[in-house]
Amino acid sequence: GLVLIKNPHLDAMEEDVLYHLDLGTKTHNLPAMFGDIKFVCVGGSPSRMKAFAQFMHRELGLEGDGEDLADICAGTDRYAMYRAGPVLSISHGMGIPSISIMLHELIKLLHHAKCRDVTIIRIGTSGGLGIEAGSVVITDTAVDSSFKPRFEQVVLGDVVVRSTDLDRDLVAELLACSEEVPDFPTLVGHTMCTYDFYEGQGRLDGALCSFSSEKKLEYLRRAHEAGVRNIEMESTAFAAMCGLCGLKGES
Amino acid sequence: GLVLIKNPHLDAMEEDVLYHLDLGTKTHNLPAMFGDIKFVCVGGSPSRMKAFAQFMHRELGLEGDGEDLADICAGTDRYAMYRAGPVLSISHGMGIPSISIMLHELIKLLHHAKCRDVTIIRIGTSGGLGIEAGSVVITDTAVDSSFKPRFEQVVLGDVVVRSTDLDRDLVAELLACSEEVPDFPTLVGHTMCTYDFYEGQGRLDGALCSFSSEKKLEYLRRAHEAGVRNIEMESTAFAAMCGLCGLKGES
Repeated sequence: GLVLIKNPHLDAMEEDVLYHLDLGTKTHNLPAMFGDIKFVCVGGSPSRMKAFAQFMHRELGLEGDGEDLADICAGTDRYAMYRAGPVLSISHGMGIPSISIMLHELIKLLHHAKCRDVTIIRIGTSGGLGIEAGSVVITDTAVDSSFKPRFEQVVLGDVVVRSTDLDRDLVAELLACSEEVPDFPTLVGHTMCTYDFYEGQGRLDGALCSFSSEKKLEYLRRAHEAGVRNIEMESTAFAAMCGLCGLKGES
Repeated sequence: GLVLIKNPHLDAMEEDVLYHLDLGTKTHNLPAMFGDIKFVCVGGSPSRMKAFAQFMHRELGLEGDGEDLADICAGTDRYAMYRAGPVLSISHGMGIPSISIMLHELIKLLHHAKCRDVTIIRIGTSGGLGIEAGSVVITDTAVDSSFKPRFEQVVLGDVVVRSTDLDRDLVAELLACSEEVPDFPTLVGHTMCTYDFYEGQGRLDGALCSFSSEKKLEYLRRAHEAGVRNIEMESTAFAAMCGLCGLKGES
């Protein structure tokens, strides 16, 4: 149940500085600070992740009103991190590069803290595809802009293809939970991850747009036929990294 | 000298909402707010871009101490924006997807505001390659992880290749300016832009690392031979978008 680090160099390092989180193995007692974390929720916006931690604080019936939760990464403005009991809530900014930096350092943090059986869930806004506005999509597979379940990572200039499978049991568990919450239509589907919000997702209102409304609709129709039910900008990298590091992940 | 919008759909739109900046053509008088902007400086961190605006406020001898500059995008935490006289200072987060969203909306903002002869400069930290620590690199060409001067943009699932040329006159002008500032070694060189901070830039201290120290050094040596003097995560997208939209851009 430990978090796996797939990096043989790390053991030989005297100190590990998690630069973008403003934390480190020599400056902080990571096992004491984070050893009991069981759930990590990540999302784009810092203020929303603070609101989510406050919500969890109330839901878990923790002491106090939770209004004054401290940003654990207050020393940097790259990311914001809050905790409510066993739940860690972290922002990741927008896009694959931004979430990747955070996940590298978060995964090392969980490893150094000797956390066990951690479940990680990405929550966030996304564009729905042929579904009711306000629906919650539980991702069964993250796909790229060609509707393929893969994440292409460039390592030293070479493309390495990684799997984007997510945890099937967690999908079923989240779907079961959703049945107790009648307010939001919830469904399971593929999530498409793009590198761009405007041209990449077929929007007609960016500073650049070289395609017609018909071409846009044709692309989105093909995505829907391939099983895509929502579009966002982080899921393939999230799925690939969680999978490689043994984190039970869902999006 | 006007900013070019390469999107035929935009003229037909009744309202243009710049979602991630919390600004819009119906909710804000963009020409009055921004019509006199001549310089835009962009960088990753919101607090640094605030500090930069405060610095510009003092340098330009504007009224007041500039300590209380308001965040023009205060209604959102995606980006932060400050102005000091004719200078706009905006954060863009980390990575190509994040800067792309901001640039789409910034370019539309400058267009709606009828700004003329705008110069845009990206400033930020980067990893130096074979140069003295603390050096300033003025980018002559932004290159990708294969050292090619191109930006590959996925449009509706297809790859479109864009040029990453930057403004040669501006390079020369910035280099001339640097000669008046003896504190920082300054040079002109290629800037490599990657999608990943750890594996993409040859770092040995990420959660994942599949290469040896020798392979890393060999890759960085090849980059240096190709003219790369620093590495960051936004320059190719920045150069491509500025070039297409007629903005005089430098990084």
